[in-house]
Amino acid sequence: QGILERLDAGEIVIGDGGFVFALEKRGYVKAGPWTPEATVEHPEAVRQLHREFLRAGSNVLQTFTFYASEDKLENRGNYVAEKISCHKVNEAACDIAREVANEGDALVAGGVSQTPSYLSCKDKKEVKAVFQKQLEVFMKKNVDFLIAEYFEHVEEAVWAVEVLKESGKPVAATMCIGPEGDMHGVSPGQCAVQLVKAGASIVGVNCHFDPETSVETVRLMKEGLQAAKLKAHLMCQPLAFHTPDCGKQGFIDLPEFPFGLEPRIATRWDIQKYARKAYDVGIRFIGGCCGFEPYHIRAIAEELAPERGFLPEASEKHGNWGDNLSMHTKPWVRARARKEYWENLKPASGRPYCPCMSKPDGWGVTKGAKELMQQKEATTEQQLKELFQKKK
Amino acid sequence: QGILERLDAGEIVIGDGGFVFALEKRGYVKAGPWTPEATVEHPEAVRQLHREFLRAGSNVLQTFTFYASEDKLENRGNYVAEKISCHKVNEAACDIAREVANEGDALVAGGVSQTPSYLSCKDKKEVKAVFQKQLEVFMKKNVDFLIAEYFEHVEEAVWAVEVLKESGKPVAATMCIGPEGDMHGVSPGQCAVQLVKAGASIVGVNCHFDPETSVETVRLMKEGLQAAKLKAHLMCQPLAFHTPDCGKQGFIDLPEFPFGLEPRIATRWDIQKYARKAYDVGIRFIGGCCGFEPYHIRAIAEELAPERGFLPEASEKHGNWGDNLSMHTKPWVRARARKEYWENLKPASGRPYCPCMSKPDGWGVTKGAKELMQQKEATTEQQLKELFQKKK
Amino acid sequence: QGILERLDAGEIVIGDGGFVFALEKRGYVKAGPWTPEATVEHPEAVRQLHREFLRAGSNVLQTFTFYASEDKLENRGNYVAEKISCHKVNEAACDIAREVANEGDALVAGGVSQTPSYLSCKDKKEVKAVFQKQLEVFMKKNVDFLIAEYFEHVEEAVWAVEVLKESGKPVAATMCIGPEGDMHGVSPGQCAVQLVKAGASIVGVNCHFDPETSVETVRLMKEGLQAAKLKAHLMCQPLAFHTPDCGKQGFIDLPEFPFGLEPRIATRWDIQKYARKAYDVGIRFIGGCCGFEPYHIRAIAEELAPERGFLPEASEKHGNWGDNLSMHTKPWVRARARKEYWENLKPASGRPYCPCMSKPDGWGVTKGAKELMQQKEATTEQQLKELFQKKK
Amino acid sequence: QGILERLDAGEIVIGDGGFVFALEKRGYVKAGPWTPEATVEHPEAVRQLHREFLRAGSNVLQTFTFYASEDKLENRGNYVAEKISCHKVNEAACDIAREVANEGDALVAGGVSQTPSYLSCKDKKEVKAVFQKQLEVFMKKNVDFLIAEYFEHVEEAVWAVEVLKESGKPVAATMCIGPEGDMHGVSPGQCAVQLVKAGASIVGVNCHFDPETSVETVRLMKEGLQAAKLKAHLMCQPLAFHTPDCGKQGFIDLPEFPFGLEPRIATRWDIQKYARKAYDVGIRFIGGCCGFEPYHIRAIAEELAPERGFLPEASEKHGNWGDNLSMHTKPWVRARARKEYWENLKPASGRPYCPCMSKPDGWGVTKGAKELMQQKEATTEQQLKELFQKKK
Repeated sequence: QGILERLDAGEIVIGDGGFVFALEKRGYVKAGPWTPEATVEHPEAVRQLHREFLRAGSNVLQTFTFYASEDKLENRGNYVAEKISCHKVNEAACDIAREVANEGDALVAGGVSQTPSYLSCKDKKEVKAVFQKQLEVFMKKNVDFLIAEYFEHVEEAVWAVEVLKESGKPVAATMCIGPEGDMHGVSPGQCAVQLVKAGASIVGVNCHFDPETSVETVRLMKEGLQAAKLKAHLMCQPLAFHTPDCGKQGFIDLPEFPFGLEPRIATRWDIQKYARKAYDVGIRFIGGCCGFEPYHIRAIAEELAPERGFLPEASEKHGNWGDNLSMHTKPWVRARARKEYWENLKPASGRPYCPCMSKPDGWGVTKGAKELMQQKEATTEQQLKELFQKKK
Repeated sequence: QGILERLDAGEIVIGDGGFVFALEKRGYVKAGPWTPEATVEHPEAVRQLHREFLRAGSNVLQTFTFYASEDKLENRGNYVAEKISCHKVNEAACDIAREVANEGDALVAGGVSQTPSYLSCKDKKEVKAVFQKQLEVFMKKNVDFLIAEYFEHVEEAVWAVEVLKESGKPVAATMCIGPEGDMHGVSPGQCAVQLVKAGASIVGVNCHFDPETSVETVRLMKEGLQAAKLKAHLMCQPLAFHTPDCGKQGFIDLPEFPFGLEPRIATRWDIQKYARKAYDVGIRFIGGCCGFEPYHIRAIAEELAPERGFLPEASEKHGNWGDNLSMHTKPWVRARARKEYWENLKPASGRPYCPCMSKPDGWGVTKGAKELMQQKEATTEQQLKELFQKKK
Repeated sequence: QGILERLDAGEIVIGDGGFVFALEKRGYVKAGPWTPEATVEHPEAVRQLHREFLRAGSNVLQTFTFYASEDKLENRGNYVAEKISCHKVNEAACDIAREVANEGDALVAGGVSQTPSYLSCKDKKEVKAVFQKQLEVFMKKNVDFLIAEYFEHVEEAVWAVEVLKESGKPVAATMCIGPEGDMHGVSPGQCAVQLVKAGASIVGVNCHFDPETSVETVRLMKEGLQAAKLKAHLMCQPLAFHTPDCGKQGFIDLPEFPFGLEPRIATRWDIQKYARKAYDVGIRFIGGCCGFEPYHIRAIAEELAPERGFLPEASEKHGNWGDNLSMHTKPWVRARARKEYWENLKPASGRPYCPCMSKPDGWGVTKGAKELMQQKEATTEQQLKELFQKKK
Repeated sequence: QGILERLDAGEIVIGDGGFVFALEKRGYVKAGPWTPEATVEHPEAVRQLHREFLRAGSNVLQTFTFYASEDKLENRGNYVAEKISCHKVNEAACDIAREVANEGDALVAGGVSQTPSYLSCKDKKEVKAVFQKQLEVFMKKNVDFLIAEYFEHVEEAVWAVEVLKESGKPVAATMCIGPEGDMHGVSPGQCAVQLVKAGASIVGVNCHFDPETSVETVRLMKEGLQAAKLKAHLMCQPLAFHTPDCGKQGFIDLPEFPFGLEPRIATRWDIQKYARKAYDVGIRFIGGCCGFEPYHIRAIAEELAPERGFLPEASEKHGNWGDNLSMHTKPWVRARARKEYWENLKPASGRPYCPCMSKPDGWGVTKGAKELMQQKEATTEQQLKELFQKKK
């Protein structure tokens, strides 16, 4: 059954987790460029990660083609065109995903994401050509459907959807935005409307914000669609990091990005709460992005098991809300074998010298404004010193 | 070259990371029992993790035989004796480790750990028989050396060393203790002395405490050995969690164990600091235990690269102190491409409703003592109420 | 010169701090009732606090008549009508304030606040009669102007202003609301408009929220007045507590209210930032409410000394941004004798087991809704258990 | 009855709180010099603070003569010798304390503290002469007993006790040390022994550390006395700040000292816990130092009211464990009117950008050592860069 048949029938579809972050920690992706040449260089590592997500409950395996557009791969100097072509990276990604999908009953989704071409102001035709090139591989490899994901500008996302739509396959589109909307100020509701009008059957968000914020953003998209009397399925693939202190541009601007995010990692219980909230808002394609490891995906599948009627394979190595602790030798550890315990736990960071929140960088005070402020301050400083001097 | 030749020559030997925690998150190990039947059930997952550690710089691959003693496997009902024998689990573990070790130049270490038999007060002969059984497999598979690890009681650790020592292979022994010593109150220094006298060539600690605490414990072991005029190589394989709030029995007693430890996970920079400290204390076998992922092992290898003269394979996907961010499109992210930034970052948890430290459970107030205290309190409460009443 | 002459001339007028909180800590006011019978019982304590505020820079001494309406004093059973009449409390408050005001050049403001009569739904006439009674004392004692403060409902505040306005004296009106507006949902802008139309020459907020939030609320009031083409002076007297986690009803709902607020107390430097922000927003009557001690008021006076051209008396016992530390024996303490140090300090709480933020109480989940949720949860819990059971 | 009669009879004696910090916030003492010329300049402010402590339950009023030795007053240039002599400051302090003590049944204690003369290595005779000068005033004004307090070096404290002892009046001696002992490394136990041998009838600690640490230090003093078979009464007057992160020299070295300590201020409930612990350890002279406000002293008196059989005057404005909230209009505030609530509250700081703990300054890395480390680091940095370069 295809993605739309499943969603139309009211099924909950579980996505997969974040490849670039997981494989960076495993040693196969370089933070910064974040490009997926590992599909060619180390296919066994990519395959194993797919397998873990499948086992954890993913119904959709996304090809590991994030940032695999030709302009991006060239741009970052992270692969040598002669040795590993963009074509090869994308093909290998499709092959691996399909191989693992066939081990279960998962669908394969070909994915494109935002391009350097758009950011450097190339025109619509040029940007579309970039997506077109990846699409050719997806068609050749016959993926089950397509996802345009991680777009900060709805304009580019619309262009991507238009290209993908020509394939005749179902198209999902997710933006990496929060409740304040895209980088040009288009609201989530308006973004959703434009994406559906361009041909997307599924819309939502991925990456950049934590689960709570992301569910709220999709809720705003839903409201926008309802106001415009449009219909679409909803999708959510957030970070597995707590980021209440993010600004408009998401976790990239947090001082901890990307090498100090550990204290923010969500627990499995946080993710169960997310899955429930997403479900309650009406989202039926529920997955994750950066930070989501296989056990986070399993948490979604377990939380929604009553609705779906089954547990994922990997639950054979997991208990219901920690009940696998019920045979521990220490009585106080056994006492943790219950839902109420984990649901209410406020986990400590073990970092007493660290704060709870950060100020995002890049708040954009212009240099001129800053200098003016400093001048003014210097003046009042001087005046104050003189007053204190006089007082004495 | 064998482990002792390397250490005797002054080489730094890098261990591997924590299998049970990493594979639990990947869906192959059950928290609670923590047994390694995955070697038979899902060898590809175990193999991949070995490979990632090798690539990250591990010089030693430990067979995934933690808690693979017969009494433990039976005890937890976590495998069906008819289907997966203890023998098979241990054999498969050896085969997989050797296969991956041969992909590089790593050594294979067969490992045993503390047993239910000891905890249930079986006698020396019975406990030794349990270790003997695992040793037979290690000898048949011809591992390079042996590690007795994760012992809370030095008495049992000594028994394990005595058994392993009969093999003629080098023996390392690490206890899961902190500066306060073993569960019977034997100090780290005394533990080290007993282990070396029993035949261990390498001694130290693993698991239960954070890097800083563990390095301090090994330092105390070193002092004990010096006082006793004994010589041995030093080894450290701590948690990759911050646990300054632990009690004597380590992280098991923290309320977050084992499903809410995320905010405590060490960053790669924390691990670089650990590697440097361990080196400065004179430890030359430096690895990790629960929580250590491949990128943590890489951090050890990178920190000590100047001393060793080379980087691990996985550093091809990593920059020096974040310098892979130097081409980021946002100037404020580029500004993070320097050592000083990451070294001084105090990462926020994103969890403003959570504390920084926890009180460990299991502090052992007896029920009787608690009731007495409550009675006394009730009396003074009553008196106080009457005094306030009178005042009005 | 009267209050309006000063403000019309562009002067900055500095208010005083919080009497009920300061005197509670000194042992003269009871938390809960918060009534000001101390004016009769312990005039020396009230006098001394006035004096400290005067010395710290206050240009306005408010009579300590908070909650001194007859209905409130009777209601709380906190004074015996035969012994200390409402009349006496208010008269003593006026006398003490005038006595101290005459020691400097401060104005005396008679104050009324919200009444139990309004909250128990008495009609306009009855509520106005309560204010009328206090006003009679203020007129007899000839205070310089009047303040209607601490109103959660603009309707009652308007009634108070109407009563006070009849006196012919200038009237200021401050509500204890945040950016979300009054308890009936009237926005700050609308509240300001209604108060000015009722006759207030000065409008703003006091109490319930932290300085940052309160300045923002007054800014919204300013916008409302501008939109309505009305003119009034702006006033701000916030808490000296950090309360970013407050809900709509302010700090009363925080679990720490009123006996655990210590970790939230603002430093003098926090208050200097507040004074600057308030000034920049156009507020010219700048003071404080609960939590403001004399040194906080001095911080306002010092921050704005360059604009005003003079320092308060109490600055003779204070340095400019800590420069009184420049003679300390320890060099690292001397190094704190500079603005940059204190401006950037992120003070630690010394409380590693405590969180940074609290969830306010009273979020109003109805009991019925809660039970429904629990029922639903129980069902899914049961289903989940069965699924896990089946899996095994 | 004198101090020794009371203590010998088993009475609990309650001390007073911290004058320099309280009066700094009220605008009468300058942080840095911390000298008490306010006794002459603003006697009404000093008198009022004494009165508040008396009302809160203090049985001992200490003359406000902290740092009132001649060398200190001259040293800091904080008074003009011609205008306010050391003699006058001390005399006024005695007069004010006695005046207020007579309003109740409190004792007056004359106090001396450590001197600049000792710190600048003057000899025993010169240092003793300084104490002698203050003692003359205390004798002329006939204080009830004497306290030598705030000594970092037991040697100087012993000299002070020897001088005071000549008066024939009972002498108490408290050092500002923690469990690590005095600045020359003398342990708390040894300090206590020396002080008792020099003639002190009461020994303990004051200032520099939080209540918990201070009680522990006095416990160590008690052990030292028992080991030496000496007898003395025990006394404790700690900070009202949480300082678990202090180094050996106490809160002076914390980056927040003295203008950013607010988040560390103890609640009344923290102080009740302190009073109980102090009592349980056998301390019978229980008071406070810097940070202790009248309501903190009242908390001691209320916690120990069942043992003492009465409440202090100021409890007429306080409920038993918050029961004055039981008539609040909001049900969730009424729910706070119970001991269990306040006892278990973990108060939030409202400061999500601030940490929980600080690293004390002044850890004494010598400049040479630091430079060496930096050199070494630079070398390994360079090597590492080259290795990464080579890898690429």
